[in-house]
Amino acid sequence: MLTVQDALIRLQKFWTDRGCMVVQPYNTEVGAGTMNPATLMRVLGPEPWRVAYVEPSVRPDDSRYGENPNRLQTHTQFQVILKPDPGNPQELYLESLEALDIDIHAHDIRFVEDNWAQPAIGAWGLGWEVWLDGMEITQFTYFQQVGGQNLDPVSVELTYGIERIMMAQQGVSHFKDLQYAPGITYGEAFGQQEYEMSRYYLDDADVQTNQDFFDRYVAESKRLIEARLPIPAYTYVLKSSHAFNVLDARGAISTTERAKAFSTMRGLARDVSKLWVERRGELDFPLMKADSAKVLAGAAVRHPADEPEDVDVTALPDTAQTLAVEIGVEELPPHVVDQAIDFVRTALTEKLDGSRLTHGAIEVTGTPRRIVAVVADVAPHEPDAETLRKGPKVAAAYDESGALTKAAQGFARGQQVDVSSLVRADFDGAEHVAVRVTEQGRDVLTVTGQIVAEVIESLRADKNMRWNDPQLSYSRPIRWVVALWGETVVPVRASELHAGRTTYVHRTDAEPLVRVAKADDLTRVLDTHGIVLDPKVRRQQVVDQSQALAESVGGTIDFEGESDLVDEITNLVEQPHAILGGYGTKYLELPEQILTTVMRKHQRYLPVRDADGKLLPHFVTVANGDCDEELVRLGNETVVRARYEDAAFFYDADKQLPLADLRAGIDKLTFENRLGSMAQRSDRINDVARELASVIGLSGEHRKTLERAGELAKFDLSSQMVIELSSLAGVMARDYAAQAGETPQVADALWEMELPRSAGDALPYSLPGALLSLADRFDLLTAMFAIGAKPTGSSDPYALRRAALGLVSVLRSQPSFGKLTVDLGLSVAAQRLRKQGIDVSDESIASAKEFVIGRFEQALRDEGVSVDSIAAVAPLAAAPGVAVQALADIDAAARADDRFPALVGAVQRITRIVPPETPASYDRALLASDAEDALAVYVDELPDHANDGLPQWVPDALPLVAPLAKFFDDVMVMADDPQLRATRLGLLQTIVERAPRGIDWRALNTALGRDRVS
Amino acid sequence: MLTVQDALIRLQKFWTDRGCMVVQPYNTEVGAGTMNPATLMRVLGPEPWRVAYVEPSVRPDDSRYGENPNRLQTHTQFQVILKPDPGNPQELYLESLEALDIDIHAHDIRFVEDNWAQPAIGAWGLGWEVWLDGMEITQFTYFQQVGGQNLDPVSVELTYGIERIMMAQQGVSHFKDLQYAPGITYGEAFGQQEYEMSRYYLDDADVQTNQDFFDRYVAESKRLIEARLPIPAYTYVLKSSHAFNVLDARGAISTTERAKAFSTMRGLARDVSKLWVERRGELDFPLMKADSAKVLAGAAVRHPADEPEDVDVTALPDTAQTLAVEIGVEELPPHVVDQAIDFVRTALTEKLDGSRLTHGAIEVTGTPRRIVAVVADVAPHEPDAETLRKGPKVAAAYDESGALTKAAQGFARGQQVDVSSLVRADFDGAEHVAVRVTEQGRDVLTVTGQIVAEVIESLRADKNMRWNDPQLSYSRPIRWVVALWGETVVPVRASELHAGRTTYVHRTDAEPLVRVAKADDLTRVLDTHGIVLDPKVRRQQVVDQSQALAESVGGTIDFEGESDLVDEITNLVEQPHAILGGYGTKYLELPEQILTTVMRKHQRYLPVRDADGKLLPHFVTVANGDCDEELVRLGNETVVRARYEDAAFFYDADKQLPLADLRAGIDKLTFENRLGSMAQRSDRINDVARELASVIGLSGEHRKTLERAGELAKFDLSSQMVIELSSLAGVMARDYAAQAGETPQVADALWEMELPRSAGDALPYSLPGALLSLADRFDLLTAMFAIGAKPTGSSDPYALRRAALGLVSVLRSQPSFGKLTVDLGLSVAAQRLRKQGIDVSDESIASAKEFVIGRFEQALRDEGVSVDSIAAVAPLAAAPGVAVQALADIDAAARADDRFPALVGAVQRITRIVPPETPASYDRALLASDAEDALAVYVDELPDHANDGLPQWVPDALPLVAPLAKFFDDVMVMADDPQLRATRLGLLQTIVERAPRGIDWRALNTALGRDRVS
Repeated sequence: MLTVQDALIRLQKFWTDRGCMVVQPYNTEVGAGTMNPATLMRVLGPEPWRVAYVEPSVRPDDSRYGENPNRLQTHTQFQVILKPDPGNPQELYLESLEALDIDIHAHDIRFVEDNWAQPAIGAWGLGWEVWLDGMEITQFTYFQQVGGQNLDPVSVELTYGIERIMMAQQGVSHFKDLQYAPGITYGEAFGQQEYEMSRYYLDDADVQTNQDFFDRYVAESKRLIEARLPIPAYTYVLKSSHAFNVLDARGAISTTERAKAFSTMRGLARDVSKLWVERRGELDFPLMKADSAKVLAGAAVRHPADEPEDVDVTALPDTAQTLAVEIGVEELPPHVVDQAIDFVRTALTEKLDGSRLTHGAIEVTGTPRRIVAVVADVAPHEPDAETLRKGPKVAAAYDESGALTKAAQGFARGQQVDVSSLVRADFDGAEHVAVRVTEQGRDVLTVTGQIVAEVIESLRADKNMRWNDPQLSYSRPIRWVVALWGETVVPVRASELHAGRTTYVHRTDAEPLVRVAKADDLTRVLDTHGIVLDPKVRRQQVVDQSQALAESVGGTIDFEGESDLVDEITNLVEQPHAILGGYGTKYLELPEQILTTVMRKHQRYLPVRDADGKLLPHFVTVANGDCDEELVRLGNETVVRARYEDAAFFYDADKQLPLADLRAGIDKLTFENRLGSMAQRSDRINDVARELASVIGLSGEHRKTLERAGELAKFDLSSQMVIELSSLAGVMARDYAAQAGETPQVADALWEMELPRSAGDALPYSLPGALLSLADRFDLLTAMFAIGAKPTGSSDPYALRRAALGLVSVLRSQPSFGKLTVDLGLSVAAQRLRKQGIDVSDESIASAKEFVIGRFEQALRDEGVSVDSIAAVAPLAAAPGVAVQALADIDAAARADDRFPALVGAVQRITRIVPPETPASYDRALLASDAEDALAVYVDELPDHANDGLPQWVPDALPLVAPLAKFFDDVMVMADDPQLRATRLGLLQTIVERAPRGIDWRALNTALGRDRVS
Repeated sequence: MLTVQDALIRLQKFWTDRGCMVVQPYNTEVGAGTMNPATLMRVLGPEPWRVAYVEPSVRPDDSRYGENPNRLQTHTQFQVILKPDPGNPQELYLESLEALDIDIHAHDIRFVEDNWAQPAIGAWGLGWEVWLDGMEITQFTYFQQVGGQNLDPVSVELTYGIERIMMAQQGVSHFKDLQYAPGITYGEAFGQQEYEMSRYYLDDADVQTNQDFFDRYVAESKRLIEARLPIPAYTYVLKSSHAFNVLDARGAISTTERAKAFSTMRGLARDVSKLWVERRGELDFPLMKADSAKVLAGAAVRHPADEPEDVDVTALPDTAQTLAVEIGVEELPPHVVDQAIDFVRTALTEKLDGSRLTHGAIEVTGTPRRIVAVVADVAPHEPDAETLRKGPKVAAAYDESGALTKAAQGFARGQQVDVSSLVRADFDGAEHVAVRVTEQGRDVLTVTGQIVAEVIESLRADKNMRWNDPQLSYSRPIRWVVALWGETVVPVRASELHAGRTTYVHRTDAEPLVRVAKADDLTRVLDTHGIVLDPKVRRQQVVDQSQALAESVGGTIDFEGESDLVDEITNLVEQPHAILGGYGTKYLELPEQILTTVMRKHQRYLPVRDADGKLLPHFVTVANGDCDEELVRLGNETVVRARYEDAAFFYDADKQLPLADLRAGIDKLTFENRLGSMAQRSDRINDVARELASVIGLSGEHRKTLERAGELAKFDLSSQMVIELSSLAGVMARDYAAQAGETPQVADALWEMELPRSAGDALPYSLPGALLSLADRFDLLTAMFAIGAKPTGSSDPYALRRAALGLVSVLRSQPSFGKLTVDLGLSVAAQRLRKQGIDVSDESIASAKEFVIGRFEQALRDEGVSVDSIAAVAPLAAAPGVAVQALADIDAAARADDRFPALVGAVQRITRIVPPETPASYDRALLASDAEDALAVYVDELPDHANDGLPQWVPDALPLVAPLAKFFDDVMVMADDPQLRATRLGLLQTIVERAPRGIDWRALNTALGRDRVS
């Protein structure tokens, strides 16, 4: 049996054989191999670097006293850095797995999108988690930025999770049972350490001491940056980071403290990184010296498919041929695959159409590893084309004698033709002299070579990266291009990529490289090797295979509900190979959300259900191509079992605690250090919710539900399950509350309080739930604005934008919430905060209101409401439900009667003329003219709709349109006689004041498309 | 070429193949692999453990900015722990060198005594430094105690110095030039780190911050000990230790702070160690479980020479045979070899003589690896012996009737003989009944087997250790025993050792194990294999070979001066193989002491000199047995060159600084935090020396010399050379001063100030030098007593005992120093200290005086002066020179005239009678009696010798003896008449007052052997 220590030695050997230096783990605690300066400093700057090392990685947060089978406060990473990207890092990586006796042909090994970012050090990269039968065994990242510095060249980082790999290899289910060395288990070697360090991190570390350490380490780091000593400075960054992690594990870090600490560490990391590059520069980048550079850089591997061919251009066929293009990439993220296909289709079509090459249908398909375009009947040449080149106008080309002017002679000379060749031609209706020019058609290779190169060079995704190519940039590295016109290789040159005729099928194929004889063979060859190019076909295979497997155990799959997941799975593989797995029925006792969260989010498994939609203890995973089904099934089952085992452990532990204890537990969770604990926040939510409930007159059972749920608000945050899977907050509250004997209404309200968790998420459906949801958000927003923690730029650590949107959605969702304006909610929350002794300024409330309304208006815009319409109901925005109703009413009114715009226009006209403070009264006797009188007749009768909506007002107001028009035509409102003027203004003002309040008539008029001027 | 990283991988492989676990370096800074808990915790308690790991070891003090070719702030150790001792760790170790491609047959590999102790963690062990051609490449230690806990079982620790081994293997002279990995040098990989961390440790670390770290780490460790978490607690011990080391490198640790910190850390280490063992016990010592235990313990290897043989006792020869015994050990320290030979000779002789076995001459010889005893003609049997067993006295054995009494009958019954067998015999002159008993002679195997076992079991040295034997204890492990009587193996069983007939010759011999057919062959076999058993022969070979080599380059060796070194070398090898080495003549420009210190103390080389005694650029090293001379010579030359290169670097650097700068440099050296800097101490010494000089009226050139040397006092402590080799303090002062143009007198005085450095060392010879020496010591003693830092128990961190003794020696050495009493010196020093603002109590001065005089008296006792004599001059002890003169005078007087004791007796008698305050006057008129008158005649004439010595007084006083005797016989001193009584007492008192002061007559009287009774 391969022991853990053997595995480490094998990896060392494997990578030193490939030019890596071995260094030692760092001698201060680091959270990951990445943090060792052998990675973090060395990936910066231009020097090459190849290194491999073991790194015991300390994560105080993962402390579990050695009890959890998969989680350790110190786990063993094996870290590899290849700088620059050698061109074939995935292949090297797969070879390294073979060095660990992992049969890559039998297992399902997948590269699953995973974008790494470490904001605390200003670092990010794109890459994958590598899955071995569903288990993440390696982080594979192309570093793009570290310490805020762009990396050039790019480094490849491989981080092997040794315990996981070895647990899979040795077939054990608890890390303690790993054979660490011959005859010695991991538990024997490190068990006590695991327990004791867990005790330290979770229970015994002195908080004040570690806080002081943090501050001191930071200060020392700053001093050393000033002294221009990047390495000692960085060591203190690491120490501060560890102190922070200890505090975090002890639950002593509030959200603001976290943000502040991150900002501090990010700043330090940036300064250190910059300094390191500077210092290396001053030393003249020693590793760029011949010897070291050669060794460290390794032999840069171009993809083996990339072999230029000599083409005898004179011997090309003269008939149309198929053009086949394959752009070979490393595994694209699933959502990028479809985008890429579309992009290539569009670009190719446009560019071909922009040439004079005739061609047939264009078909583009693709998988995560390739985009394939096939164009039928592409002509061998563009036809020649005749064009006229424009000279001077005829009038200017000939003098009065009809002789050519100097200008015309000059034009002919410039075109290198004899004046006899000049002709006359019409250009845009004017006659010019011209020269007839024949443009020679280009051959197909030239044209398509250039087009394909341009397509490749212009490929972009939402997130792009660099690799070892000097120019290209894309979602993942582009590694090879096949381009054939008939039997001929098209000479594509995209940056350093050259097209050839060798394609790359499954990496685990007996012969992964396959030569393609001619364009028509490309899709056939790929098909023969099991690559299912068409995403639609793949999707159908996923569905069919999965359904068949589900049926084999009497189940089914909710493909409609899982549609997004099926799409994702479709683009995670090139050849779907569905495999049925199972798990112990005992796990079905866990809440369904736990099970499905793990299956969908973590594992991309399709849950199998019975006819009633209840979960069966089965799942379908979709492997990529051939593999040993039994082995892969077992592997996946082990992974899911471990995850469920974890969950069950937490679930049982949590349920053993009375709710009161869990509620008491949140007292220990700091919410924000100026705002107190999570328990204090829960108390505030409870009080605010009651206050809001009183405003809308909530009573009876609803009131009881609200009060009980309010008492328990957020209690599940102290449960182990939520600490573990924070997305289950609320879900667990509902579950634990129901199990503890609370009413279903209370349990539901606790869940609803968390809703909506994102845009488009479900909204609270009960009144108590909705009120709690509002109270939660009003408290959060008021509190955060009070302490000056409003979002800035892209930074929104408390997700206040989401909270504001949620607030608005809830207010809109309940018809009875009209009185619950944003102002009211914020002021209730502010009062409650002040009661706790927190200073809430009026400015901060105003600022919070502005923020919420801004989000509301943004949401309306996103829903397609015009800016003007939004402006029209802006005065109502503090009551979003009312505002939205008003918008609907406007819409309905406009659609119902085409006089509505005229009515609005008239009202707006009044508001423009009549000064705001004008009293709404008129002396009927003074209104002498016909037009005045006619209008007054209607106004006298007009009911007061100030507090109504448009639907009530419009029918009564429409009759005003005609008399008003006449009034404006005939009457000079601003009469010289002040009395007359006052009564005319008063008449008009009466019309306005009896119209619904809260409408901005000017904006509404614009919204209705009228009268944009003035 | 084997790169550094290859070497580490080879060692890992080598040791894992031998059952070691590999662990990772510790993730907090450690000073050595020993400090990793994988060593420090795991060697405690009963559990087996085998581990091998790399440890980057951080020694802030060794920071050299990467400039020194051999010294790094972080060097790479490879650490191996074998617990329990596998029985053959040296052989395993040598094999591991072969794994590094080191040809152990060609090189000179030696195990040179090195006793490891780490007081800061209460740990010690015995072992060796392993030398490869004169270079220390490995520390090899049998751990005996850690954290104050005795270790059972004992662990073997191997610590390879990787950089050194690889520099030798790769033949490079600077660590930066090592090939670390293919194409990458050590300097390229780690050079910048080395520079920057050096900067931090030496220049940039914030002192206050690190002091706080130290305190905080200690506090956290204490808390965790209380929480019973040994591993986290120990981690904080390591962190505190590192903080301490940083402070130390920054020069911020005073001697008292050091002592205090060590005591703190020792206490923590002890508590943590105890706790660890307790906790493991509570876990039931998990590694004692079958599987792990078996693997970790490895196959315990008994020495291959240990093979029991079946002996046919009936077929033994019946003639006397040679007895040959060899006790095989691992390399004994040189001084133990001779002791062991003597011990075995004595023990064997006694024990054989205690048996009835006849035998011939006993010859015992030995080398560091074996003690061999050969006894000629040992008889096959003890003869039978007849003895009489004593019964009751005849008188009690027979009643009056001549019949046997019950007592006699009972005796016979007890002896199981018939009463008829009773005989009569004389016992001590009394006649008893008795029984004749024949004691059967034992056979030779029984007798010698037991004797040899007893000898082995009783072997002891000054420092003894345990290894894998359950009972034996000795200077180093005893690994095999050969014991032959003629051709027969003697069945020796000493604890678990069994004697056999296989001896072990040079480990690098083609066949290191050799069977010995018979006793007479043993020394011959050893001789044939090049083992020179007789130390006298070996010594002569060392001398002859070395002299021949020295002569080959026209030189010679001062064997008389190097006698101790030759003795040491003789017992460092089994077969002397002298090799001549050389070094660049340029190094001869260095002061000789530097060169010889390195050669003698560090390398055990014999310096080669020319006829005038001047050093030639050659040395002789004595390898052990066959080796590749050229290779070994080159290796040794490399080592010495590196050391001289270091020294030359420091020497040149120092000389470039004006003395004033060096003197200014000691301002930065803390002497003791309450007493200020070394510069302040220098100032005090200067002032005290001037004051003392004034007391003795020093003037002229002497005075000038003193004043200049005083200004420079201790300046060389800031020189790099002295920081490096502290034993050169004073030596370098003289050298640098002379080179800087100071007078030879000033240069000498600076050197003399440091004298004497130890008991028996040279004393200052010039007056200025002696005065500075005194001033130095008066200041030190007064200051330390003032701050309460006097020596306690075995702790004397400031070497105050040595200072006191030195002080006394200097005072005794200069005849003109009579006035410079201890009181005077201390009070001058105290005054000067007070001027600096330091509080010096009178009690502390008194206590310091008592301490100095105590040391003086102890020295006198050590010189053989009787306690009474010392007491006799005790009143003079504050002026040691005077006191010693008085002792000499007493001695001379006693030898010159046998009336001297009577004179002393008489004076003592007076002092006994006369009350102390009696006036020394008498009324001649009242002295009426003959006896009175006769005495008065003499007294009248007696000159006053109160301020003289005995030689002046004795001739004048001797005539008093007779009249005094008569006076006492005839006169009643205590007459009733007060006047008469007063005049008689006054007469006697006059005698006493005219005798030399400072003699305690009563003690002197006792010293002269008289009148012990009152």
